[in-house]
Amino acid sequence: MKFVNNAWYVAGWASEFESRLKSITILERNIVAYRTIDGRVVALDDRCPHKFLPLSKGQLVEDQIVCGYHGLTFGGDGVCKRIPGQSNIPTSAKVHAYPTYERHGIVWIWMGEPEHADTADVFDLPQFEDPSWEAHLGEALHLKCNYLSVAENLVDPAHVSWVHPTTLGNAASEDIPVDFEITDKNIIAWRWIRDSPPIGFFQQYGNFDGNVDRWHYYYLHLPCTAVIDFGSVESALQLPEARRHEGCQIYAIHFMTPITENYTIDRWMHIRNTAIDDDQVAAQIDAMFKVAFDEDKAILEAIQAEEERAASPPTLRLAIDKGANVYRKRIDRLIEAESLQAAE
Amino acid sequence: MKFVNNAWYVAGWASEFESRLKSITILERNIVAYRTIDGRVVALDDRCPHKFLPLSKGQLVEDQIVCGYHGLTFGGDGVCKRIPGQSNIPTSAKVHAYPTYERHGIVWIWMGEPEHADTADVFDLPQFEDPSWEAHLGEALHLKCNYLSVAENLVDPAHVSWVHPTTLGNAASEDIPVDFEITDKNIIAWRWIRDSPPIGFFQQYGNFDGNVDRWHYYYLHLPCTAVIDFGSVESALQLPEARRHEGCQIYAIHFMTPITENYTIDRWMHIRNTAIDDDQVAAQIDAMFKVAFDEDKAILEAIQAEEERAASPPTLRLAIDKGANVYRKRIDRLIEAESLQAAE
Amino acid sequence: MKFVNNAWYVAGWASEFESRLKSITILERNIVAYRTIDGRVVALDDRCPHKFLPLSKGQLVEDQIVCGYHGLTFGGDGVCKRIPGQSNIPTSAKVHAYPTYERHGIVWIWMGEPEHADTADVFDLPQFEDPSWEAHLGEALHLKCNYLSVAENLVDPAHVSWVHPTTLGNAASEDIPVDFEITDKNIIAWRWIRDSPPIGFFQQYGNFDGNVDRWHYYYLHLPCTAVIDFGSVESALQLPEARRHEGCQIYAIHFMTPITENYTIDRWMHIRNTAIDDDQVAAQIDAMFKVAFDEDKAILEAIQAEEERAASPPTLRLAIDKGANVYRKRIDRLIEAESLQAAE
Repeated sequence: MKFVNNAWYVAGWASEFESRLKSITILERNIVAYRTIDGRVVALDDRCPHKFLPLSKGQLVEDQIVCGYHGLTFGGDGVCKRIPGQSNIPTSAKVHAYPTYERHGIVWIWMGEPEHADTADVFDLPQFEDPSWEAHLGEALHLKCNYLSVAENLVDPAHVSWVHPTTLGNAASEDIPVDFEITDKNIIAWRWIRDSPPIGFFQQYGNFDGNVDRWHYYYLHLPCTAVIDFGSVESALQLPEARRHEGCQIYAIHFMTPITENYTIDRWMHIRNTAIDDDQVAAQIDAMFKVAFDEDKAILEAIQAEEERAASPPTLRLAIDKGANVYRKRIDRLIEAESLQAAE
Repeated sequence: MKFVNNAWYVAGWASEFESRLKSITILERNIVAYRTIDGRVVALDDRCPHKFLPLSKGQLVEDQIVCGYHGLTFGGDGVCKRIPGQSNIPTSAKVHAYPTYERHGIVWIWMGEPEHADTADVFDLPQFEDPSWEAHLGEALHLKCNYLSVAENLVDPAHVSWVHPTTLGNAASEDIPVDFEITDKNIIAWRWIRDSPPIGFFQQYGNFDGNVDRWHYYYLHLPCTAVIDFGSVESALQLPEARRHEGCQIYAIHFMTPITENYTIDRWMHIRNTAIDDDQVAAQIDAMFKVAFDEDKAILEAIQAEEERAASPPTLRLAIDKGANVYRKRIDRLIEAESLQAAE
Repeated sequence: MKFVNNAWYVAGWASEFESRLKSITILERNIVAYRTIDGRVVALDDRCPHKFLPLSKGQLVEDQIVCGYHGLTFGGDGVCKRIPGQSNIPTSAKVHAYPTYERHGIVWIWMGEPEHADTADVFDLPQFEDPSWEAHLGEALHLKCNYLSVAENLVDPAHVSWVHPTTLGNAASEDIPVDFEITDKNIIAWRWIRDSPPIGFFQQYGNFDGNVDRWHYYYLHLPCTAVIDFGSVESALQLPEARRHEGCQIYAIHFMTPITENYTIDRWMHIRNTAIDDDQVAAQIDAMFKVAFDEDKAILEAIQAEEERAASPPTLRLAIDKGANVYRKRIDRLIEAESLQAAE
């Protein structure tokens, strides 16, 4: 297997779940999800154990799913409650029920053994609830590529000069090396570009006239959450690194959900420290992100096609790849550990 | 192999064969068929043995096929009669000729060794020729699924309550168990639903006002013919089971032709004991069947997709599955027997 | 491997290469090509060794390619000249550069080891430069089939009676056997059809009234160049074979470029000994060829589909197949020799 199972993944924004059956795929598993009358999100394997008809083809009746082929009826716990035409219900008449958790408008799903699910592990940031910051959910970017390539891209400050020359990067940063910090909790890649013209993003958002100091801090949390802390401040202020929240700062957050080995959904959002409650600014930022993320999509999908075609993976490693290399090793170790655990 | 070869399959309705080359696929074999000047249907392997050009790309000239690449000419017996540019014709210059048989407007083809073909084995019903019954050919339902799933569906009275709630089933039958009779000749699944509102089909066809007794008898003949005897009669008449022909009775007949492992054509027809010679009624019945069979198609194709995706087949077996289980075992035995025979 | 590597293949007409990045595929290898400021055609493996982004997604800057992901910059020799953000350039930072050669408006590419490339081996004909002949480049025929089938078709005078009855063949040639001459340099298949009505091609081009003597000489040069010398002359002249250039003669030349195992581009052209400088005649000949080559395309693609479907290749060999059989054996030997050489 090429996925980490024992982890919380984003199943969708809260608004994506209503009181009707919805079919989704995560880690190559087909899942039927719905919101119960009392508001909880249920997620079950989307397959009746009788004839394998997807349960999402059936009916939702009073928080239970009635299979569309022979009427077998399953509760939110995945257990079969009724088999029309016979009174006994075999214990094998059940489907896997996935633990879910909802917070800050985000629905998470636990893809491992339910007994290991701990909601304390769900990703969080203090800024989500801090009134001096504003969190804004964006959209879902569908990428025809493996999630590992997406993650690499999200711990890689160097690519912005080349992939996003009109929005997130510009020529001033081309030759600035990247710094890394590897912690138990995450992988951090960052750099500051001092005293240079603002990037396209901060020309529009922030209205900087003269030169700025700007930064990019990429925090990659295994397996699939990336936080990009970036911003700008007038160079004249000579702001130290630790006080960058006094500048114009944005957290761009990416929740990667691996759908299949070559398909990933990247739900993105941002948290900003200016223009609180200003929906027009949020929409403007969304628009700029969409330009940039479509540029990433073009690159990542072309790489995926080439990797599928090529017999072997790339081997040229550069200084800027340190974060990506550590990430891939850690993912490999997690998958190996799960595999050993499963074999016990 | 996953098909029974030594059997007659429906190649098409008689009207589908004319004096021109037609390419069809049955049991994954490509076949070129045409009707000769004296009305016989010829069926040959659709591949010139020289360069593998399909013969259906050539010309039909006086009951012979002239290959479109180099003019090799084959008779209705599959033997090469001419090789332009050389006088000797190697004995290997021939293609397989399939036995065919036509009756009641239906063209059958024998897919096994020609010496085992016996037209006495072709499916028949006395009602085809009985003037108090009317036989009416329907259409060809193309199903992106394995024929075994289609056959299961055609020995399964239980699914009509859930899949066809507006036409062939309704809530009254949800919990009525199914009876089975397993004979050497076929597999029978049936049930009666007594004293309940008529199903949608017999509301339109039959004009029943009050409650009816209704029945469903599914006869599955191996490998690929299903006869569904169903009908209704006013409950007040208290009609015994054996005299159901005195009610409003229909035989819906399905001829399954496996095209590939995941594609099946189901040609369907009906024979009815009322409204003889009334084409309007036949068209009305066709229309109702089409609604119902499209419902089956949606279910069967969703199951096929899930079976292809899933590593293992379903294992939950219910009381209603008895006919399907016997059918699959018998098909397995037939295929195994053919395999042993071929190895001798 | 199923391709001959140590050979010059046509990469395209000269007009297809400009000062911008162009992605092409030859022998299943993806190649990025461009014309330098001083007019030379560069061809490199289309894949950055860093993250496998196709280089054709990058920018051409002063005869160098700048990768679109991290700015790695490669010269026309395939060697990396710059890695932004780091000063040392590993020796592994390079891509394969293919030798190219341009003559008579045709760009050739050498697909084997560069040290074996010898431009003396590039296909040539004296008529290219002879002022009494006119060379005219045609179009690129895209064929969804293996190049071996295309080559077979181009050493096969017999098929024209059946595949091209309105242009290049007619009934008069149906039963005329084919002669062969096998030399070290090429494989020749030919026949003369004496004193018969002109084929459609020469009814339009040449305006013959009465019967003609006509010829077809197919010269197949391994691996992928075919020259078809064909023409007509009034039968009354009783022209001997060796003086056929006194008749109305055309060389139809086909350059096959294997793209993948089941995709071949056939770039075709002609050289004629009449109507010099008459563009209208050239266009008329193109139009006739296009009719004929589309007929070949239909045949070849149907054969490819059938060969992919069938478990085994055709085995019926006819007298007309001699050229094709020698060709396939020679190709097999060349591929085997390359394979042994690579293993040394």
